[in-house]
Amino acid sequence: MCESAAYILKEDGMERIMDNVVSVDPFEGKVYLTDLLGEQKIIDGEIKEIRLMDHKIIIKENKR
Amino acid sequence: MCESAAYILKEDGMERIMDNVVSVDPFEGKVYLTDLLGEQKIIDGEIKEIRLMDHKIIIKENKR
Repeated sequence: MCESAAYILKEDGMERIMDNVVSVDPFEGKVYLTDLLGEQKIIDGEIKEIRLMDHKIIIKENKR
Repeated sequence: MCESAAYILKEDGMERIMDNVVSVDPFEGKVYLTDLLGEQKIIDGEIKEIRLMDHKIIIKENKR
């Protein structure tokens, strides 16, 4: 299985926000994450990096 | 192993541009792809979607 965990990049590290992510869709300044069960989270931010070997999706939040 | 293949979205379908992708880094309008062997490709475009279960990274090229 190749699902990954999604993290938000913070000044003091990374916060894990979703496990078992199966799809990632950036669209108009937001990142739509979907997990194995079909649950969705929408993050106001952009993809910073994806490390497939580490199973990490790292998202940078937009500044308010 | 969780590496994926990267595709560019074309009007008439998808073109496979890299196999065994291990990292994806969007930065300033480009997408930096790195494969298992450390080879890098830089695409003038943005991430359209990532399907981890299908092992697909889909990139949309910027319009010229």
